[in-house]
Amino acid sequence: MALTQVSSNKCAGGFQKVFEHDSTELKCKMKFAVFLPPKAETGKCPVFYWLSGLTCTEQNFITKAGSQLAAAEHGIIIVAPDTSPRGCSIEGEDETWDFGTGAGFYVDATQDPWKTNYRMYSYVTEELPKLINSNFPTDPDRMSISGHSMGGHGALICALKNPGKYKAYDATVLAGSYSGPQLDILIDQGRDDQFLSASQLLPDNLISVCSEKKIPVVFRLQPGYDHSYFFIYSFMNDHIKHHAKYLNA
Amino acid sequence: MALTQVSSNKCAGGFQKVFEHDSTELKCKMKFAVFLPPKAETGKCPVFYWLSGLTCTEQNFITKAGSQLAAAEHGIIIVAPDTSPRGCSIEGEDETWDFGTGAGFYVDATQDPWKTNYRMYSYVTEELPKLINSNFPTDPDRMSISGHSMGGHGALICALKNPGKYKAYDATVLAGSYSGPQLDILIDQGRDDQFLSASQLLPDNLISVCSEKKIPVVFRLQPGYDHSYFFIYSFMNDHIKHHAKYLNA
Repeated sequence: MALTQVSSNKCAGGFQKVFEHDSTELKCKMKFAVFLPPKAETGKCPVFYWLSGLTCTEQNFITKAGSQLAAAEHGIIIVAPDTSPRGCSIEGEDETWDFGTGAGFYVDATQDPWKTNYRMYSYVTEELPKLINSNFPTDPDRMSISGHSMGGHGALICALKNPGKYKAYDATVLAGSYSGPQLDILIDQGRDDQFLSASQLLPDNLISVCSEKKIPVVFRLQPGYDHSYFFIYSFMNDHIKHHAKYLNA
Repeated sequence: MALTQVSSNKCAGGFQKVFEHDSTELKCKMKFAVFLPPKAETGKCPVFYWLSGLTCTEQNFITKAGSQLAAAEHGIIIVAPDTSPRGCSIEGEDETWDFGTGAGFYVDATQDPWKTNYRMYSYVTEELPKLINSNFPTDPDRMSISGHSMGGHGALICALKNPGKYKAYDATVLAGSYSGPQLDILIDQGRDDQFLSASQLLPDNLISVCSEKKIPVVFRLQPGYDHSYFFIYSFMNDHIKHHAKYLNA
Protein backbone atom coordinates (compact mmCIF):
# COMPACT_ATOMS: atom_id res chain seq x y z
CA MET A 1 0.00 0.00 0.00
CA ALA A 2 3.03 2.29 -0.36
CA LEU A 3 2.44 5.48 -2.31
CA THR A 4 5.06 7.30 -4.35
CA GLN A 5 4.39 10.97 -4.99
CA VAL A 6 4.78 11.76 -8.69
CA SER A 7 3.91 15.45 -8.55
CA SER A 8 2.54 18.10 -6.23
CA ASN A 9 1.29 21.54 -7.30
CA LYS A 10 -0.32 24.09 -5.08
CA CYS A 11 -3.72 24.85 -6.56
CA ALA A 12 -6.77 26.81 -5.40
CA GLY A 13 -5.25 27.13 -1.93
CA GLY A 14 -4.80 23.36 -1.62
CA PHE A 15 -2.65 20.81 -3.43
CA GLN A 16 -3.14 18.92 -6.66
CA LYS A 17 -1.04 15.78 -6.33
CA VAL A 18 -0.42 12.63 -8.35
CA PHE A 19 0.69 9.35 -6.77
CA GLU A 20 1.81 5.98 -8.07
CA HIS A 21 1.32 2.63 -6.36
CA ASP A 22 1.38 -1.12 -7.03
CA SER A 23 -2.22 -2.19 -7.46
CA THR A 24 -3.12 -5.59 -6.05
CA GLU A 25 -6.36 -5.74 -8.06
CA LEU A 26 -4.79 -4.76 -11.37
CA LYS A 27 -1.35 -6.32 -10.89
CA CYS A 28 0.46 -3.30 -12.29
CA LYS A 29 1.66 0.16 -11.30
CA MET A 30 -1.21 2.68 -11.28
CA LYS A 31 -1.35 6.44 -10.99
CA PHE A 32 -4.13 8.47 -9.46
CA ALA A 33 -4.64 12.17 -8.85
CA VAL A 34 -5.84 13.63 -5.58
CA PHE A 35 -6.84 17.22 -4.85
CA LEU A 36 -6.50 18.16 -1.19
CA PRO A 37 -8.51 21.28 -0.30
CA PRO A 38 -7.16 23.71 2.32
CA LYS A 39 -9.56 22.17 4.84
CA ALA A 40 -7.66 18.85 4.62
CA GLU A 41 -4.76 20.47 6.49
CA THR A 42 -6.81 20.68 9.67
CA GLY A 43 -9.72 18.26 9.41
CA LYS A 44 -11.33 15.28 7.73
CA CYS A 45 -12.98 15.83 4.37
CA PRO A 46 -15.47 13.90 2.25
CA VAL A 47 -14.20 12.40 -1.01
CA PHE A 48 -15.58 12.89 -4.53
CA TYR A 49 -14.41 10.20 -6.98
CA TRP A 50 -14.23 11.17 -10.65
CA LEU A 51 -14.07 8.52 -13.36
CA SER A 52 -12.74 9.73 -16.71
CA GLY A 53 -13.70 8.66 -20.21
CA LEU A 54 -12.08 6.66 -22.99
CA THR A 55 -8.45 7.54 -23.83
CA CYS A 56 -7.99 9.58 -20.64
CA THR A 57 -5.41 9.22 -17.90
CA GLU A 58 -5.52 10.75 -14.42
CA GLN A 59 -4.33 14.01 -16.04
CA ASN A 60 -7.30 15.10 -18.17
CA PHE A 61 -9.69 15.92 -15.37
CA ILE A 62 -7.16 17.69 -13.17
CA THR A 63 -5.78 19.90 -15.94
CA LYS A 64 -8.97 20.68 -17.88
CA ALA A 65 -12.11 20.49 -15.75
CA GLY A 66 -11.52 23.46 -13.46
CA SER A 67 -12.83 21.54 -10.44
CA GLN A 68 -10.35 22.64 -7.77
CA LEU A 69 -11.75 26.06 -6.85
CA ALA A 70 -15.22 24.66 -6.13
CA ALA A 71 -13.73 21.66 -4.27
CA ALA A 72 -11.63 24.05 -2.16
CA GLU A 73 -14.70 26.14 -1.40
CA HIS A 74 -16.73 23.13 -0.28
CA GLY A 75 -13.85 21.34 1.50
CA ILE A 76 -14.01 18.25 -0.71
CA ILE A 77 -11.13 15.92 -1.64
CA ILE A 78 -11.25 14.87 -5.31
CA VAL A 79 -9.76 11.56 -6.42
CA ALA A 80 -9.30 10.90 -10.15
CA PRO A 81 -7.87 7.48 -11.01
CA ASP A 82 -6.39 6.41 -14.33
CA THR A 83 -8.88 4.69 -16.66
CA SER A 84 -7.34 1.23 -17.10
CA PRO A 85 -4.44 -1.00 -16.12
CA ARG A 86 -1.19 0.06 -17.81
CA GLY A 87 1.66 -1.82 -19.40
CA CYS A 88 0.26 -5.31 -18.88
CA SER A 89 1.50 -6.46 -22.31
CA ILE A 90 -1.72 -8.27 -23.16
CA GLU A 91 -2.11 -9.03 -26.86
CA GLY A 92 -4.64 -6.68 -28.45
CA GLU A 93 -4.51 -4.25 -25.52
CA ASP A 94 -3.30 -1.30 -27.58
CA GLU A 95 -5.04 -1.83 -30.90
CA THR A 96 -8.06 0.48 -30.64
CA TRP A 97 -8.92 3.61 -28.67
CA ASP A 98 -12.08 2.13 -27.18
CA PHE A 99 -10.78 -1.20 -25.91
CA GLY A 100 -7.93 -2.19 -23.58
CA THR A 101 -5.44 0.46 -22.50
CA GLY A 102 -7.26 3.70 -21.65
CA ALA A 103 -10.60 1.90 -21.83
CA GLY A 104 -11.03 -0.09 -18.62
CA PHE A 105 -14.79 0.48 -18.61
CA TYR A 106 -14.87 0.12 -14.81
CA VAL A 107 -15.87 -3.55 -14.95
CA ASP A 108 -14.18 -6.74 -13.71
CA ALA A 109 -13.32 -8.79 -16.79
CA THR A 110 -14.38 -12.44 -16.60
CA GLN A 111 -12.46 -13.93 -19.51
CA ASP A 112 -8.84 -14.62 -20.36
CA PRO A 113 -6.56 -12.88 -21.18
CA TRP A 114 -8.21 -9.89 -19.46
CA LYS A 115 -9.45 -11.18 -16.12
CA THR A 116 -6.12 -10.98 -14.28
CA ASN A 117 -5.58 -7.26 -14.82
CA TYR A 118 -8.77 -5.62 -16.06
CA ARG A 119 -10.52 -5.35 -12.69
CA MET A 120 -11.25 -1.62 -12.72
CA TYR A 121 -14.60 -2.07 -10.96
CA SER A 122 -12.99 -3.64 -7.89
CA TYR A 123 -10.14 -1.16 -8.14
CA VAL A 124 -12.31 1.96 -7.99
CA THR A 125 -14.91 0.65 -5.53
CA GLU A 126 -12.63 -1.29 -3.13
CA GLU A 127 -8.86 -0.97 -3.44
CA LEU A 128 -8.68 2.73 -4.24
CA PRO A 129 -11.07 3.95 -1.49
CA LYS A 130 -9.13 1.85 1.08
CA LEU A 131 -5.87 3.34 -0.14
CA ILE A 132 -7.27 6.86 -0.04
CA ASN A 133 -8.82 6.44 3.39
CA SER A 134 -5.61 5.09 4.90
CA ASN A 135 -3.36 7.78 3.41
CA PHE A 136 -5.39 11.00 3.43
CA PRO A 137 -7.55 12.87 5.97
CA THR A 138 -10.90 11.52 4.75
CA ASP A 139 -14.21 10.79 6.36
CA PRO A 140 -14.80 7.24 4.98
CA ASP A 141 -18.54 7.57 5.52
CA ARG A 142 -18.85 10.48 3.13
CA MET A 143 -17.94 9.59 -0.44
CA SER A 144 -19.59 10.26 -3.79
CA ILE A 145 -18.94 9.38 -7.39
CA SER A 146 -19.24 11.07 -10.76
CA GLY A 147 -17.69 10.91 -14.20
CA HIS A 148 -17.91 11.60 -17.90
CA SER A 149 -18.64 9.35 -20.87
CA MET A 150 -17.34 5.82 -20.11
CA GLY A 151 -16.64 7.21 -16.63
CA GLY A 152 -20.17 8.56 -16.29
CA HIS A 153 -21.44 5.07 -16.91
CA GLY A 154 -18.80 3.75 -14.52
CA ALA A 155 -19.98 6.11 -11.79
CA LEU A 156 -23.56 5.00 -12.32
CA ILE A 157 -22.85 1.27 -12.08
CA CYS A 158 -20.59 1.75 -9.05
CA ALA A 159 -23.37 3.59 -7.22
CA LEU A 160 -26.19 1.28 -8.34
CA LYS A 161 -24.30 -1.89 -7.40
CA ASN A 162 -23.29 -0.55 -3.98
CA PRO A 163 -26.44 0.84 -2.35
CA GLY A 164 -25.60 3.38 0.32
CA LYS A 165 -21.85 3.40 -0.37
CA TYR A 166 -21.87 6.67 -2.26
CA LYS A 167 -23.73 9.67 -0.84
CA ALA A 168 -24.35 11.18 -4.29
CA TYR A 169 -23.45 10.58 -7.89
CA ASP A 170 -24.26 11.67 -11.42
CA ALA A 171 -23.66 9.97 -14.73
CA THR A 172 -24.04 10.50 -18.44
CA VAL A 173 -25.11 7.17 -19.77
CA LEU A 174 -27.28 4.10 -19.26
CA ALA A 175 -29.41 2.88 -16.41
CA GLY A 176 -29.95 -0.06 -14.12
CA SER A 177 -32.19 -1.39 -11.47
CA TYR A 178 -31.74 -0.29 -7.90
CA SER A 179 -32.86 -1.06 -4.39
CA GLY A 180 -31.47 0.96 -1.50
CA PRO A 181 -31.34 4.45 -0.02
CA GLN A 182 -32.82 7.34 -1.97
CA LEU A 183 -30.62 8.59 -4.82
CA ASP A 184 -30.36 12.02 -6.40
CA ILE A 185 -28.86 11.85 -9.88
CA LEU A 186 -27.71 14.93 -11.77
CA ILE A 187 -26.88 14.47 -15.45
CA ASP A 188 -25.75 17.04 -17.97
CA GLN A 189 -25.84 15.98 -21.60
CA GLY A 190 -24.65 18.12 -24.51
CA ARG A 191 -27.40 18.28 -27.12
CA ASP A 192 -24.79 18.53 -29.90
CA ASP A 193 -22.68 15.67 -28.52
CA GLN A 194 -21.45 13.67 -31.53
CA PHE A 195 -21.94 10.40 -29.64
CA LEU A 196 -25.53 11.36 -28.87
CA SER A 197 -26.32 11.96 -32.54
CA ALA A 198 -24.62 8.64 -33.34
CA SER A 199 -27.11 6.98 -30.94
CA GLN A 200 -24.34 5.66 -28.72
CA LEU A 201 -25.50 7.27 -25.47
CA LEU A 202 -29.22 6.54 -25.11
CA PRO A 203 -30.05 8.82 -22.18
CA ASP A 204 -33.77 8.23 -22.84
CA ASN A 205 -33.32 4.64 -21.63
CA LEU A 206 -31.88 5.90 -18.36
CA ILE A 207 -34.62 8.45 -17.81
CA SER A 208 -37.30 5.92 -18.64
CA VAL A 209 -35.93 3.35 -16.14
CA CYS A 210 -35.46 6.01 -13.44
CA SER A 211 -38.98 7.19 -13.95
CA GLU A 212 -40.30 3.63 -13.68
CA LYS A 213 -38.26 2.95 -10.52
CA LYS A 214 -39.09 6.39 -9.09
CA ILE A 215 -35.38 7.30 -8.87
CA PRO A 216 -35.06 11.10 -8.87
CA VAL A 217 -32.95 12.22 -11.82
CA VAL A 218 -32.36 15.72 -13.07
CA PHE A 219 -31.43 15.42 -16.73
CA ARG A 220 -30.30 18.64 -18.38
CA LEU A 221 -29.99 18.60 -22.16
CA GLN A 222 -27.60 21.48 -22.81
CA PRO A 223 -28.14 23.06 -26.24
CA GLY A 224 -25.01 23.51 -28.37
CA TYR A 225 -22.65 21.59 -26.08
CA ASP A 226 -20.59 18.64 -27.31
CA HIS A 227 -18.67 15.78 -25.64
CA SER A 228 -15.50 17.76 -24.85
CA TYR A 229 -13.86 19.06 -21.71
CA PHE A 230 -15.18 22.50 -22.67
CA PHE A 231 -18.59 21.02 -21.87
CA ILE A 232 -17.40 19.41 -18.62
CA TYR A 233 -15.72 22.65 -17.51
CA SER A 234 -18.89 24.65 -18.22
CA PHE A 235 -20.99 22.70 -15.71
CA MET A 236 -18.36 21.48 -13.23
CA ASN A 237 -19.30 23.99 -10.53
CA ASP A 238 -22.93 22.82 -10.58
CA HIS A 239 -21.85 19.21 -10.09
CA ILE A 240 -19.47 19.92 -7.21
CA LYS A 241 -22.26 21.91 -5.57
CA HIS A 242 -24.71 19.05 -6.11
CA HIS A 243 -22.33 16.62 -4.39
CA ALA A 244 -21.48 19.06 -1.61
CA LYS A 245 -25.18 19.19 -0.68
CA TYR A 246 -24.94 15.56 0.47
CA LEU A 247 -21.26 15.27 1.36
CA ASN A 248 -21.44 18.22 3.72
CA ALA A 249 -24.95 17.51 5.01
CA MET B 1 -7.38 38.22 -44.08
CA ALA B 2 -9.49 35.08 -44.61
CA LEU B 3 -10.08 32.96 -41.53
CA THR B 4 -10.59 29.20 -41.53
CA GLN B 5 -12.40 27.80 -38.52
CA VAL B 6 -10.45 24.87 -37.05
CA SER B 7 -12.77 24.07 -34.15
CA SER B 8 -15.77 25.40 -32.28
CA ASN B 9 -16.96 24.18 -28.88
CA LYS B 10 -19.77 25.65 -26.87
CA CYS B 11 -18.31 26.66 -23.52
CA ALA B 12 -19.59 28.65 -20.54
CA GLY B 13 -22.64 29.73 -22.54
CA GLY B 14 -20.48 31.11 -25.36
CA PHE B 15 -18.11 29.55 -27.86
CA GLN B 16 -14.46 28.56 -27.66
CA LYS B 17 -13.19 28.63 -31.23
CA VAL B 18 -9.85 28.18 -32.99
CA PHE B 19 -9.08 29.75 -36.37
CA GLU B 20 -6.24 29.52 -38.87
CA HIS B 21 -5.07 32.26 -41.22
CA ASP B 22 -2.13 33.28 -43.41
CA SER B 23 -0.13 35.81 -41.44
CA THR B 24 1.39 38.65 -43.43
CA GLU B 25 3.77 39.58 -40.59
CA LEU B 26 5.00 36.04 -39.96
CA LYS B 27 4.77 34.69 -43.52
CA CYS B 28 3.23 31.40 -42.40
CA LYS B 29 -0.08 29.87 -41.37
CA MET B 30 -0.99 30.78 -37.80
CA LYS B 31 -3.65 29.57 -35.40
CA PHE B 32 -5.31 31.58 -32.68
CA ALA B 33 -8.06 30.84 -30.17
CA VAL B 34 -10.98 33.15 -29.49
CA PHE B 35 -13.58 32.84 -26.76
CA LEU B 36 -16.85 34.57 -27.61
CA PRO B 37 -18.99 35.24 -24.53
CA PRO B 38 -22.81 35.05 -24.80
CA LYS B 39 -22.88 38.86 -24.93
CA ALA B 40 -21.04 38.76 -28.29
CA GLU B 41 -24.22 37.41 -29.90
CA THR B 42 -26.01 40.70 -29.40
CA GLY B 43 -23.43 43.42 -28.81
CA LYS B 44 -19.84 44.59 -29.03
CA CYS B 45 -17.41 43.33 -26.41
CA PRO B 46 -13.97 44.38 -25.20
CA VAL B 47 -11.06 42.07 -25.95
CA PHE B 48 -8.56 40.55 -23.51
CA TYR B 49 -5.38 39.28 -25.22
CA TRP B 50 -3.52 36.45 -23.52
CA LEU B 51 0.09 35.66 -24.42
CA SER B 52 1.25 32.17 -23.46
CA GLY B 53 4.65 31.00 -22.31
CA LEU B 54 7.49 28.96 -23.79
CA THR B 55 6.50 25.67 -25.48
CA CYS B 56 2.80 26.59 -25.56
CA THR B 57 0.41 26.76 -28.50
CA GLU B 58 -2.99 28.44 -28.61
CA GLN B 59 -4.35 25.33 -26.84
CA ASN B 60 -2.77 25.52 -23.37
CA PHE B 61 -4.61 28.56 -22.11
CA ILE B 62 -8.02 27.59 -23.47
CA THR B 63 -7.92 24.03 -22.11
CA LYS B 64 -6.22 24.60 -18.76
CA ALA B 65 -6.72 28.10 -17.38
CA GLY B 66 -10.46 28.00 -16.68
CA SER B 67 -10.93 31.54 -17.98
CA GLN B 68 -14.19 31.17 -19.90
CA LEU B 69 -16.72 31.33 -17.05
CA ALA B 70 -15.35 34.63 -15.77
CA ALA B 71 -15.07 36.02 -19.32
CA ALA B 72 -18.69 35.03 -19.97
CA GLU B 73 -19.77 36.72 -16.76
CA HIS B 74 -17.99 39.96 -17.62
CA GLY B 75 -18.83 39.90 -21.36
CA ILE B 76 -15.20 39.82 -22.48
CA ILE B 77 -13.79 38.24 -25.65
CA ILE B 78 -10.50 36.40 -25.02
CA VAL B 79 -7.94 36.02 -27.80
CA ALA B 80 -5.04 33.60 -27.29
CA PRO B 81 -2.55 33.46 -30.18
CA ASP B 82 0.07 30.79 -30.79
CA THR B 83 3.51 31.65 -29.37
CA SER B 84 5.70 31.71 -32.48
CA PRO B 85 5.71 31.30 -36.25
CA ARG B 86 5.30 27.66 -37.29
CA GLY B 87 6.88 25.50 -39.95
CA CYS B 88 9.23 28.14 -41.36
CA SER B 89 12.04 25.60 -41.80
CA ILE B 90 14.71 27.91 -40.44
CA GLU B 91 17.90 26.12 -39.41
CA GLY B 92 18.13 25.85 -35.62
CA GLU B 93 14.43 26.66 -35.15
CA ASP B 94 13.59 23.37 -33.44
CA GLU B 95 16.73 22.63 -31.47
CA THR B 96 15.84 23.87 -27.99
CA TRP B 97 12.63 24.46 -26.06
CA ASP B 98 13.42 28.08 -25.26
CA PHE B 99 14.40 29.35 -28.72
CA GLY B 100 12.65 29.34 -32.10
CA THR B 101 9.46 27.33 -32.51
CA GLY B 102 7.21 27.79 -29.47
CA ALA B 103 9.44 30.60 -28.22
CA GLY B 104 8.64 33.71 -30.25
CA PHE B 105 9.28 35.97 -27.27
CA TYR B 106 6.90 38.59 -28.70
CA VAL B 107 9.70 40.62 -30.27
CA ASP B 108 10.50 41.54 -33.90
CA ALA B 109 13.78 39.83 -34.78
CA THR B 110 16.36 42.10 -36.41
CA GLN B 111 18.86 39.57 -37.72
CA ASP B 112 18.92 36.91 -40.41
CA PRO B 113 17.72 34.20 -40.63
CA TRP B 114 14.98 35.19 -38.15
CA LYS B 115 13.85 38.65 -39.21
CA THR B 116 11.52 37.54 -42.02
CA ASN B 117 9.27 35.36 -39.86
CA TYR B 118 9.93 36.03 -36.19
CA ARG B 119 7.87 39.23 -35.90
CA MET B 120 5.62 38.22 -33.02
CA TYR B 121 5.61 41.73 -31.54
CA SER B 122 4.07 43.24 -34.69
CA TYR B 123 1.81 40.21 -35.02
CA VAL B 124 0.23 40.51 -31.57
CA THR B 125 0.10 44.32 -31.41
CA GLU B 126 -0.91 45.11 -35.03
CA GLU B 127 -1.93 42.28 -37.35
CA LEU B 128 -3.89 40.19 -34.87
CA PRO B 129 -5.96 43.04 -33.34
CA LYS B 130 -6.89 44.22 -36.87
CA LEU B 131 -7.91 40.69 -37.81
CA ILE B 132 -9.94 40.29 -34.63
CA ASN B 133 -11.63 43.67 -34.95
CA SER B 134 -12.65 43.03 -38.55
CA ASN B 135 -14.02 39.54 -37.92
CA PHE B 136 -15.62 39.62 -34.47
CA PRO B 137 -18.04 41.92 -32.61
CA THR B 138 -15.38 43.89 -30.72
CA ASP B 139 -15.11 47.40 -29.41
CA PRO B 140 -11.64 48.32 -30.79
CA ASP B 141 -11.19 51.01 -28.15
CA ARG B 142 -11.38 48.55 -25.30
CA MET B 143 -8.56 46.02 -25.31
CA SER B 144 -6.23 44.72 -22.63
CA ILE B 145 -3.31 42.33 -22.45
CA SER B 146 -2.00 39.73 -20.05
CA GLY B 147 0.08 36.58 -20.09
CA HIS B 148 2.25 34.10 -18.27
CA SER B 149 6.01 33.59 -18.20
CA MET B 150 7.48 34.60 -21.61
CA GLY B 151 3.94 35.80 -22.36
CA GLY B 152 3.77 37.82 -19.16
CA HIS B 153 6.87 39.64 -20.28
CA GLY B 154 5.36 39.94 -23.75
CA ALA B 155 2.21 41.53 -22.33
CA LEU B 156 4.29 43.99 -20.36
CA ILE B 157 6.42 45.16 -23.30
CA CYS B 158 3.37 45.40 -25.57
CA ALA B 159 1.64 47.67 -23.07
CA LEU B 160 4.71 49.73 -22.21
CA LYS B 161 5.66 50.34 -25.85
CA ASN B 162 2.11 51.32 -26.83
CA PRO B 163 0.93 53.89 -24.28
CA GLY B 164 -2.85 54.03 -24.15
CA LYS B 165 -3.42 51.11 -26.53
CA TYR B 166 -4.27 48.63 -23.81
CA LYS B 167 -6.75 49.58 -21.09
CA ALA B 168 -5.19 47.20 -18.57
CA TYR B 169 -2.55 44.54 -18.38
CA ASP B 170 -0.59 42.40 -15.96
CA ALA B 171 2.67 40.58 -16.35
CA THR B 172 4.99 38.24 -14.51
CA VAL B 173 8.42 39.40 -15.43
CA LEU B 174 10.72 42.35 -16.06
CA ALA B 175 10.15 46.08 -16.27
CA GLY B 176 10.67 49.05 -18.51
CA SER B 177 10.32 52.75 -18.67
CA TYR B 178 6.98 54.29 -19.47
CA SER B 179 5.37 57.59 -20.32
CA GLY B 180 1.64 57.72 -20.97
CA PRO B 181 -1.74 57.19 -19.34
CA GLN B 182 -1.91 55.79 -15.84
CA LEU B 183 -1.37 52.02 -15.64
CA ASP B 184 -2.63 49.49 -13.12
CA ILE B 185 -0.51 46.35 -13.13
CA LEU B 186 -1.56 43.17 -11.35
CA ILE B 187 1.09 40.46 -11.00
CA ASP B 188 0.82 37.10 -9.32
CA GLN B 189 4.09 35.27 -8.73
CA GLY B 190 4.38 31.78 -7.23
CA ARG B 191 6.83 31.88 -4.35
CA ASP B 192 7.89 28.28 -5.08
CA ASP B 193 8.25 28.88 -8.83
CA GLN B 194 11.34 26.95 -9.96
CA PHE B 195 12.34 29.77 -12.32
CA LEU B 196 12.14 32.25 -9.46
CA SER B 197 14.51 30.21 -7.31
CA ALA B 198 16.81 29.89 -10.34
CA SER B 199 16.93 33.72 -10.44
CA GLN B 200 15.50 33.82 -13.96
CA LEU B 201 12.48 36.01 -13.20
CA LEU B 202 13.74 38.99 -11.19
CA PRO B 203 10.41 40.51 -10.13
CA ASP B 204 12.27 42.76 -7.69
CA ASN B 205 13.69 44.66 -10.67
CA LEU B 206 10.17 45.30 -11.96
CA ILE B 207 8.86 46.45 -8.61
CA SER B 208 11.84 48.69 -8.08
CA VAL B 209 11.44 50.39 -11.49
CA CYS B 210 7.68 50.76 -11.02
CA SER B 211 8.20 52.29 -7.64
CA GLU B 212 10.76 54.74 -9.07
CA LYS B 213 8.44 55.67 -11.98
CA LYS B 214 5.38 55.77 -9.70
CA ILE B 215 3.61 53.10 -11.79
CA PRO B 216 0.99 51.40 -9.60
CA VAL B 217 1.71 47.68 -9.39
CA VAL B 218 0.09 45.11 -7.17
CA PHE B 219 2.59 42.29 -6.80
CA ARG B 220 1.29 39.22 -4.99
CA LEU B 221 3.87 36.63 -3.98
CA GLN B 222 1.76 33.49 -3.61
CA PRO B 223 3.25 31.04 -1.09
CA GLY B 224 3.57 27.44 -2.28
CA TYR B 225 2.62 28.09 -5.91
CA ASP B 226 4.88 27.11 -8.80
CA HIS B 227 5.08 28.03 -12.53
CA SER B 228 2.35 25.65 -13.73
CA TYR B 229 -1.15 26.05 -15.10
CA PHE B 230 -2.40 24.95 -11.67
CA PHE B 231 -1.04 28.31 -10.50
CA ILE B 232 -2.57 30.21 -13.43
CA TYR B 233 -5.95 28.53 -12.92
CA SER B 234 -5.92 29.38 -9.21
CA PHE B 235 -5.80 33.14 -9.81
CA MET B 236 -7.44 33.45 -13.24
CA ASN B 237 -10.73 34.81 -11.89
CA ASP B 238 -8.92 37.63 -10.08
CA HIS B 239 -7.17 38.67 -13.28
CA ILE B 240 -10.29 38.64 -15.45
CA LYS B 241 -11.99 40.75 -12.79
CA HIS B 242 -9.05 43.16 -12.71
CA HIS B 243 -9.27 43.63 -16.48
CA ALA B 244 -13.07 43.89 -16.45
CA LYS B 245 -12.79 46.87 -14.10
CA TYR B 246 -11.24 48.87 -16.95
CA LEU B 247 -12.68 47.12 -20.00
CA ASN B 248 -16.23 47.58 -18.79
CA ALA B 249 -15.69 51.00 -17.20
